[in-house]
Amino acid sequence: MASLSCSSHLATLINQTDATNYLCNQFDSISRKLNDATYAVDNTYLLFSAYLVFAMQLGFAMLCAGSVRAKNTMNIMLTNVLDAAAGGLSYYLFGFAFAFGAPSNGFIGRHFFGLRDYPTPTADYSFFLYQWAFAIAAAGITSGSIAERTQFVAYLIYSSFLTGFVYPIVSHWFWSGDGWASATRIDGNVLFGSGVIDFAGSGVVHMVGGIAGLWGALIEGPRIGRFDRTGRSVALRGHSASLVVLGSFLLWFGWYGFNPGSFFTIAKGYGGLGYYGQWSAIGRTAVTTTLAGSTAALTTLFSKRLLVGHWNVIDVCNGLLGGFAAITSGCAVVEPWAAIVCGFVAAWVLIGLNKVAAKVEYDDPLEAAQLHGGCGAWGVLFTGLFAKREYVEEIYGIGRPCGALMGGGGKLLAAQLIEIVVVCGWVTATMGPLFYGLHKLNLLRISRDDETAGMDLTRHGGFAYAYHDDEDGSSRGVGLMMRKIEPASTSPSPPAAPQLSISSL
Amino acid sequence: MASLSCSSHLATLINQTDATNYLCNQFDSISRKLNDATYAVDNTYLLFSAYLVFAMQLGFAMLCAGSVRAKNTMNIMLTNVLDAAAGGLSYYLFGFAFAFGAPSNGFIGRHFFGLRDYPTPTADYSFFLYQWAFAIAAAGITSGSIAERTQFVAYLIYSSFLTGFVYPIVSHWFWSGDGWASATRIDGNVLFGSGVIDFAGSGVVHMVGGIAGLWGALIEGPRIGRFDRTGRSVALRGHSASLVVLGSFLLWFGWYGFNPGSFFTIAKGYGGLGYYGQWSAIGRTAVTTTLAGSTAALTTLFSKRLLVGHWNVIDVCNGLLGGFAAITSGCAVVEPWAAIVCGFVAAWVLIGLNKVAAKVEYDDPLEAAQLHGGCGAWGVLFTGLFAKREYVEEIYGIGRPCGALMGGGGKLLAAQLIEIVVVCGWVTATMGPLFYGLHKLNLLRISRDDETAGMDLTRHGGFAYAYHDDEDGSSRGVGLMMRKIEPASTSPSPPAAPQLSISSL
Amino acid sequence: MASLSCSSHLATLINQTDATNYLCNQFDSISRKLNDATYAVDNTYLLFSAYLVFAMQLGFAMLCAGSVRAKNTMNIMLTNVLDAAAGGLSYYLFGFAFAFGAPSNGFIGRHFFGLRDYPTPTADYSFFLYQWAFAIAAAGITSGSIAERTQFVAYLIYSSFLTGFVYPIVSHWFWSGDGWASATRIDGNVLFGSGVIDFAGSGVVHMVGGIAGLWGALIEGPRIGRFDRTGRSVALRGHSASLVVLGSFLLWFGWYGFNPGSFFTIAKGYGGLGYYGQWSAIGRTAVTTTLAGSTAALTTLFSKRLLVGHWNVIDVCNGLLGGFAAITSGCAVVEPWAAIVCGFVAAWVLIGLNKVAAKVEYDDPLEAAQLHGGCGAWGVLFTGLFAKREYVEEIYGIGRPCGALMGGGGKLLAAQLIEIVVVCGWVTATMGPLFYGLHKLNLLRISRDDETAGMDLTRHGGFAYAYHDDEDGSSRGVGLMMRKIEPASTSPSPPAAPQLSISSL
Repeated sequence: MASLSCSSHLATLINQTDATNYLCNQFDSISRKLNDATYAVDNTYLLFSAYLVFAMQLGFAMLCAGSVRAKNTMNIMLTNVLDAAAGGLSYYLFGFAFAFGAPSNGFIGRHFFGLRDYPTPTADYSFFLYQWAFAIAAAGITSGSIAERTQFVAYLIYSSFLTGFVYPIVSHWFWSGDGWASATRIDGNVLFGSGVIDFAGSGVVHMVGGIAGLWGALIEGPRIGRFDRTGRSVALRGHSASLVVLGSFLLWFGWYGFNPGSFFTIAKGYGGLGYYGQWSAIGRTAVTTTLAGSTAALTTLFSKRLLVGHWNVIDVCNGLLGGFAAITSGCAVVEPWAAIVCGFVAAWVLIGLNKVAAKVEYDDPLEAAQLHGGCGAWGVLFTGLFAKREYVEEIYGIGRPCGALMGGGGKLLAAQLIEIVVVCGWVTATMGPLFYGLHKLNLLRISRDDETAGMDLTRHGGFAYAYHDDEDGSSRGVGLMMRKIEPASTSPSPPAAPQLSISSL
Repeated sequence: MASLSCSSHLATLINQTDATNYLCNQFDSISRKLNDATYAVDNTYLLFSAYLVFAMQLGFAMLCAGSVRAKNTMNIMLTNVLDAAAGGLSYYLFGFAFAFGAPSNGFIGRHFFGLRDYPTPTADYSFFLYQWAFAIAAAGITSGSIAERTQFVAYLIYSSFLTGFVYPIVSHWFWSGDGWASATRIDGNVLFGSGVIDFAGSGVVHMVGGIAGLWGALIEGPRIGRFDRTGRSVALRGHSASLVVLGSFLLWFGWYGFNPGSFFTIAKGYGGLGYYGQWSAIGRTAVTTTLAGSTAALTTLFSKRLLVGHWNVIDVCNGLLGGFAAITSGCAVVEPWAAIVCGFVAAWVLIGLNKVAAKVEYDDPLEAAQLHGGCGAWGVLFTGLFAKREYVEEIYGIGRPCGALMGGGGKLLAAQLIEIVVVCGWVTATMGPLFYGLHKLNLLRISRDDETAGMDLTRHGGFAYAYHDDEDGSSRGVGLMMRKIEPASTSPSPPAAPQLSISSL
Repeated sequence: MASLSCSSHLATLINQTDATNYLCNQFDSISRKLNDATYAVDNTYLLFSAYLVFAMQLGFAMLCAGSVRAKNTMNIMLTNVLDAAAGGLSYYLFGFAFAFGAPSNGFIGRHFFGLRDYPTPTADYSFFLYQWAFAIAAAGITSGSIAERTQFVAYLIYSSFLTGFVYPIVSHWFWSGDGWASATRIDGNVLFGSGVIDFAGSGVVHMVGGIAGLWGALIEGPRIGRFDRTGRSVALRGHSASLVVLGSFLLWFGWYGFNPGSFFTIAKGYGGLGYYGQWSAIGRTAVTTTLAGSTAALTTLFSKRLLVGHWNVIDVCNGLLGGFAAITSGCAVVEPWAAIVCGFVAAWVLIGLNKVAAKVEYDDPLEAAQLHGGCGAWGVLFTGLFAKREYVEEIYGIGRPCGALMGGGGKLLAAQLIEIVVVCGWVTATMGPLFYGLHKLNLLRISRDDETAGMDLTRHGGFAYAYHDDEDGSSRGVGLMMRKIEPASTSPSPPAAPQLSISSL
């Protein structure tokens, strides 16, 4: 029908100008609709990826909750909720501006405060939302390292500083169109003729969160009872393996937004074969992510069986996440088989660092520094070794160097090493003094009594669970609950008494 | 290649008619494919938004479960599962027809019963699914208000009535293309020249659910022990903060389907700048939603710290949800900074209404009437104050009035006030008598004994949890479990014995 | 603007060749962009569907965890994590090649090992990811049937065999473009002129997992205490109804990826009306899925109320899942009303098979064989009865036979019966001997002591939960924990007293 009307219409246009106009109007109308459809699919892709990354915050909350003792559940979950909420405000007000407010001097962005003059032709609200979901992930990592012993006011301070300043600066350097080390610099003047390839942020997100946690946990010292008098490591097991598995699976689910989503757009052909384009690279990224995590999980399963003697689901979950943290840097530019190598090594990095941590009496309830910091650093290196020429050129442009083991020479590897050094240095230089200052001001660590009683009871309004009626302390007075939480009252140890007075139910 | 074949082909067409036909066929073929791609992206967007809204039902289930005492967990979760299941059938059979069966008389739809003669050029199955996911949310809100004391048969009755009739009528009025108060009336004859802007349903969904809950909870009265003899409020704390946080995060996650999804389509340019279109408005809606919830959560955190003395994650979650419920009305037509105002006020509305509720001895286990009813009403007003002209015109058409504080005069605000009055009136006139009738027939509230023992044991086949072997009553007889669930054994009340015979473990 | 530049440009092209080239270049450029947008939306659709299907693995994990006793929680969750992880590696290395490595002999694929020479013009990485998510679902079903009594090493063996070989072969037969029974054979030479219509895999996935579980559970025998001396069925209730509901809702959520996602693409018009296309069929599939599950849930609710006397949320969840498993085969080719019939019957199939299972003392902790095997088989039959001509022709091509009750004769029904027989036979012939061999080698079932103590304590490093400080056995030695978990082992009956004093119930 349309065909007929078009033909008869064209036929009536004897005048060539009319015909020309008709044709051009047709092209125009189609171009506009095609433009709309393309923006629509790209934004749909990025928005739903952002939602998935946001779901990781729920994953973190459940993973953290399950990994701590029941008496600190409310505390850790509150920090996870607040990472998202406070991060929402601060990233809107200035964090996003620091990170992506181009043009800049290459070190810190300076536009889009409070999303002024936004959106632009190259960045829409979906991009803001996506980057916000990334920013809150970093703070979530750190809260794991210093769980079960940190004052809530200290959390409020370091979390704001990390999400609002430290992390945005790093993301500006490596991801912004004018960051000094970014591989996507608009002016093409990239570091070592390569720029750092940290595609979804093994360094920018995971190392930042992990190293911040490392300093926090080092300065606070281990939880009471974590190492006995002889220095032997004593596991303080989390209170719910179900929550740990729930959280790990949610993180896996969300990682499909984190890694493949970092392409930002999907409707982009790569020339040549019509069926091969950014959509294929995105799918491949999901596959490399899956394989790295899977391999790390299996490696952990069998090595822990050999080393410790049982099949441990908690360790498998941590290994899995270590594999994900590692592949996050190179996910888009490596072959699937290389992702298996990445995951295999990541599992051993985590096992090794955990051994070291136990030896030096470093206590990190979520293994966050080892996992996100250690495996993240391995991931940044891995990209420098295994990035494939073809994939690098598709994403970053023809002529860019690829991985050292893939015939690319040492330029990319050098850039990656620079990232590791710079991230370690920057986070240490900012978060280290902050934690130390809080420590000196007695604002960092809770009191011994509070730590023994648990923070929920003393600071957060009560215990997180009440499975039986008689546990519902609120309706019958505190006595009953206290007795249950500290059975010590029936045994000789006397600290129960002072705690009762502290409790702020 | 294609170019060559096209050129050589065109060149051979000496006859002008042939050339014309060739060109027109090309346009046709492209138009068809473009049409397909556009429908595809719009439906992909709406379907996945619907899935997110559905995920809110899981969020409600977990939030409700965690907020009640362990002994009523099975009961409340069953109502949440059934809201979705029974709602699926009733919305298919007649609910959708009442809501969107245009053309109608403006008050109740009358087409598409059982999805007959569906889909239409303007509404596809994805739209039905999306609206179903909304319908079941309303009933979920109400079940929170009357939790822990309502007979299951009463639930079955009010839930069907609400999902199948009360709610669809309201959505017809405000959202259907011929609803009397809809801002999207096809004939353009909108209320006060404006129509009500309740974009994603602060009024249509949240107030409906909240006010229904208000009447139910008022008529039932408070739970046993909720207020002591002097009228002092005694918190009956929920049994699992982890489930509350899980549920709240899932609701946050799902809200990204609820609010931005209410655009229904995404592939629509707004003219002018090619990069700015409905996809931008959708992203902005996700941002306003995030900011309102975040602000409300933070406001609650600090105000509760000042008022009560501890940092409470449960309160923060409720504040968060209050912010979401409020922004739901105006999310698409306000600036991000206004969303911060919205969330800030919403937090105080919730705090204030909770104070009032405690004073008048109104017991709502989920604070659902305060949260969804109160913050929802504030949200409807807020839109009348802060809607921005530019955004209103993009969505509803040139010339529509905007918010009173944004230079839009009072027309929109008046329309919004009408919505509040009408929703209150309609829900009161329908659900009030229903709850009162059930009450008079002794079908509404469970017996004192059942309430003390918990509904799970007496009506739902047993206690929801068995963490230790000796709790597994089924394998060792009921005695042990009963003893634990009813500490009454230490107190005088003897009803434990008769209950044993009822319970069907 | 574009229009003007186009017109003036065309006007300058006096030479007809130039004008022709200009027009053809325009068409080319548009076609390329349109091609990109189409691949983008199709891949976005398939990738996010794959993510939803992956979320089902989390659903399974939570459903299984909640359905077993607390002492075996770590074990069952570990199997669910490993299904995904080990499945990731094996499906990459060879599973996908067996399943979709066309061209083949019709019985087993033989290309794409390790994703070599991938992607192809017809299959991208998104397709691999989607099929991987399906493959891991099958093994998850089986692990439910043999829960709480299977050696971990046996799990590792059968799970690899099922995911890597048994399941891929079946999916090749019924889904690959050259499978002998596939309705989508490229050469058109389909079984009975019809081919089997198992759209999303009631047979290929659910029956495979269910029948494998049946043989495993039959060979292992029931759990200790599941049937008393007189053969009376004794429910061994799971430890957390909240996890069961969480898992069921997540499965519901994920099923929207499983069923509608099985279209693989969405940007495909069906000719005729421009607004009706594959996007409509996809939406309708989501609706039929919803209605079948909802109907089955309601049917179960009321029938269990009549049969057993209480309103049981666990039963409702299982009924719901039975409805989903049944509609999975025909979801794309039946009318919504027929989905209601499907769900209604599925509920009764499950109830009936559970009665039979109790009678013959068959113990399946998740009812997996009854649910996935039984309801899955019903679903395959149902498609042969109710498939609608119009929908079948839209998907599989003009002239294909439809359901026997829809005027389609017996050809499709015959093909469906063949599937049931063949799937039963193949799974029995492969998994039966495997389980029997493991049994004979004493590798299948754990010892009586281990079963009584629970696998978590003996094999997986400890109990999954520690809600109270004194339960944190690791920090105080295992003795305390052991005593609580195994009251019976040390003494005949009086341990109840010591437990009371230790335990903090």
